[in-house]
Amino acid sequence: MAEQIEFDQAHQALQEVSEALENGRFVHVRRQLQDMEPEDIAHLLEASPRKSREVLWQLADPEDYGEILDELNEDVKDDLVSKMDPEMLVEATEGMDTDDMAYVLRSLPDDLSQEVLSQMDSADRIRVETALAYPEDSAGSLMNTDVITIRGDVDVDVVLRYLRILGELPEATDAIYVIDSENKLIGYLSLTTLITTQPDVKVHEVMESSSDAIEVTMSDSDVASLFERRNWVSAPVIDENQQLVGRITIDDVVDVIREDVEHSMMSMAGMDDDEDTFAPVVKSARKRSIWLGANVLAALAAASVSNMFEDTLAQMASIAVLMTIVPSMGGVAGNQTVALVIRGLALGHIGDSNRRELLMKEALVGLLNGVLWAVIIGGIVMLWKGSWMLGGIISAAMLTNLFVAGVAGVTIPVLLKKMNIDPALAGGMALTTVTDVIGLSVFLGLATILM
Amino acid sequence: MAEQIEFDQAHQALQEVSEALENGRFVHVRRQLQDMEPEDIAHLLEASPRKSREVLWQLADPEDYGEILDELNEDVKDDLVSKMDPEMLVEATEGMDTDDMAYVLRSLPDDLSQEVLSQMDSADRIRVETALAYPEDSAGSLMNTDVITIRGDVDVDVVLRYLRILGELPEATDAIYVIDSENKLIGYLSLTTLITTQPDVKVHEVMESSSDAIEVTMSDSDVASLFERRNWVSAPVIDENQQLVGRITIDDVVDVIREDVEHSMMSMAGMDDDEDTFAPVVKSARKRSIWLGANVLAALAAASVSNMFEDTLAQMASIAVLMTIVPSMGGVAGNQTVALVIRGLALGHIGDSNRRELLMKEALVGLLNGVLWAVIIGGIVMLWKGSWMLGGIISAAMLTNLFVAGVAGVTIPVLLKKMNIDPALAGGMALTTVTDVIGLSVFLGLATILM
Repeated sequence: MAEQIEFDQAHQALQEVSEALENGRFVHVRRQLQDMEPEDIAHLLEASPRKSREVLWQLADPEDYGEILDELNEDVKDDLVSKMDPEMLVEATEGMDTDDMAYVLRSLPDDLSQEVLSQMDSADRIRVETALAYPEDSAGSLMNTDVITIRGDVDVDVVLRYLRILGELPEATDAIYVIDSENKLIGYLSLTTLITTQPDVKVHEVMESSSDAIEVTMSDSDVASLFERRNWVSAPVIDENQQLVGRITIDDVVDVIREDVEHSMMSMAGMDDDEDTFAPVVKSARKRSIWLGANVLAALAAASVSNMFEDTLAQMASIAVLMTIVPSMGGVAGNQTVALVIRGLALGHIGDSNRRELLMKEALVGLLNGVLWAVIIGGIVMLWKGSWMLGGIISAAMLTNLFVAGVAGVTIPVLLKKMNIDPALAGGMALTTVTDVIGLSVFLGLATILM
Repeated sequence: MAEQIEFDQAHQALQEVSEALENGRFVHVRRQLQDMEPEDIAHLLEASPRKSREVLWQLADPEDYGEILDELNEDVKDDLVSKMDPEMLVEATEGMDTDDMAYVLRSLPDDLSQEVLSQMDSADRIRVETALAYPEDSAGSLMNTDVITIRGDVDVDVVLRYLRILGELPEATDAIYVIDSENKLIGYLSLTTLITTQPDVKVHEVMESSSDAIEVTMSDSDVASLFERRNWVSAPVIDENQQLVGRITIDDVVDVIREDVEHSMMSMAGMDDDEDTFAPVVKSARKRSIWLGANVLAALAAASVSNMFEDTLAQMASIAVLMTIVPSMGGVAGNQTVALVIRGLALGHIGDSNRRELLMKEALVGLLNGVLWAVIIGGIVMLWKGSWMLGGIISAAMLTNLFVAGVAGVTIPVLLKKMNIDPALAGGMALTTVTDVIGLSVFLGLATILM
């Protein structure tokens, strides 16, 4: 009950806070923010139009800045960080995990990030500089360096006493790592094993061996896929010499999973997945116009096809009236296949061994639906325009185009992937261009020949 | 290194196993499957065409069936389960978590699920029947009942000794729960606290109070959102009397997060998010034809608009050639906005308080891009067709349609959500219908009046 109420409150907080902001009741808002968790403030900021967002940020407790920034969407975070001075940034990053500190520094201009680094204490600086040395989408950039390590030849009891002296364990610690004298990872001891083992047992007798370590250069999507399949809560990260360099926790992996899937969803509609819901108008318009520009080329390609059949169109206006139906159906059917293939590629389900089967299957699905809709639409057109010939022509064009849509829906994303072009971004538009051009060519071509 | 190799192997396994299958080397495949983790076998099954899938399933060790089924996509799981007899199902479900057992039983025909239930041992049966009593998308259906509970008035040392006697803790246990004599949840003790606390301290002195419990009726999407924001590994579940009934772990929540985002992505393309990549052709074709049927209506609506202007089209074929450009650009621009709004609605970022601002912003983005592309396309058409008037008409239609696309892109998903219709499913098609009809009407209407 308590949590349900709290959860609904999070939804209501937005409404309340924005009302209080409009009425200028800043003291009230400040008090509300003090009662909220940093992650809920982050949610509130993301859901706030830009003007309220700036006021809210000023009213939040600067001590929470680090934790709030941790939880924010990239565009919103970049926006707020760009307005902070170096002293505030140093203060805000103090409470952060290494990977999040590195993330914030990466998004700053070089001179500013150098200034912030120089003001950090040396332990933090070394940790962040290490993280910054790894590529942005690698395991190295996801990991934290706050690992607890022990030797394998000690008793469980000694470990327990050591941990009691430490007093506090890093967040999401579910295991401590066993290393040899060269800092090489040889295994791990889960907290559950530690707790259920008799005190006089040696660590190496109950530890698990370290086959499950992540290479620091592995891509973050591969890391996410491993976590998802193995149901891990955390995993150790090793460098090329098998030395333990850090660990990755599930909370950061969840962000990667959400971002990867959101990337597919947003890219397929021609959007940047980092886009802030309340981004500045000019920035949004500029980002989106690139995609609209690509579509202009696609639309002009279709218009050029129609242009080739201008004589036919001039003779029969019903052809012009009907000519949008076949491309439209082909585009929708093809994009169904494209969505399936993009998901399959992202999940690693599609490879050399099964591509042919998938192509066969989608071509058949296209044929089947092609026959169905050829009959239905052919019938409608026959009744509407009173012409057997016109009905037959649109049927033939529909069947051809839905078959092409199935084949192109598999081929295009797979080829794009091979060419290292993001299939989620380019697949839909390339497909639509193909189905528009083929659909119009067949329909107008047949009409020109037969009528 | 070890893990990187293992990971690449998972990608290669598919290739190797399918080659071995083709050559009929079943013994070899069986041996390969024995060396694989159940989650990797699940991945292999999802990535296999249907014929190989059935052979692989036969060759896998029936003792692993439960764990493999746990990890499978719904459509694939339903397919395999439908071919198992009750005895095999009982055996397979024996090793499963309660929530997964309940899931499998839900997907069976009633008489079969009754038969499986009657063959389970009574402890399992009671647990599963409890889980089955909760709605399918609720916290209750996600939870496991394998919780460890203690009283608050005992020493930490007593707890540690109790856990050692238990010998093994349930998977992903990061906390044990503190209850009173009526089984009401009063707090929890994280394993890290347990480990770092002196043995003679009482549990209630170091436990956290239980404000973070999840109501058993909360929707699974809300549960996922809470886990994501609070960075939880597990959380207790309580009923309406505050009594502890189970716990939810992050691995099940990760599945919900992936499913929710994938649902948006697949629905926007008119696909079912459960669809198996290698589903039977007829089944796929039938599922997709519903969406194609909806698009027929949209395409016919657009054709009816053109039909109203048949006289204009009959007089000027260039109008027919150019008439697809404006609807195409409007559809693309509108779907960018729809994608942004669908993500915002799913994340809970859009509510009564900020809807107006979002509408204003997207209308302005539409206007800005409308001006840009009106000028560019107007210019192209003027040069191509050598007509100032035609250039002006397409510019005016483009500007209007991109503005309408921005407004409709916000309004349609928000209205659908209010009407309890899934905006991801219906939003894109409704939007395209609006931009097609408006784009064609303005372009053909102006051409009829002015030329």
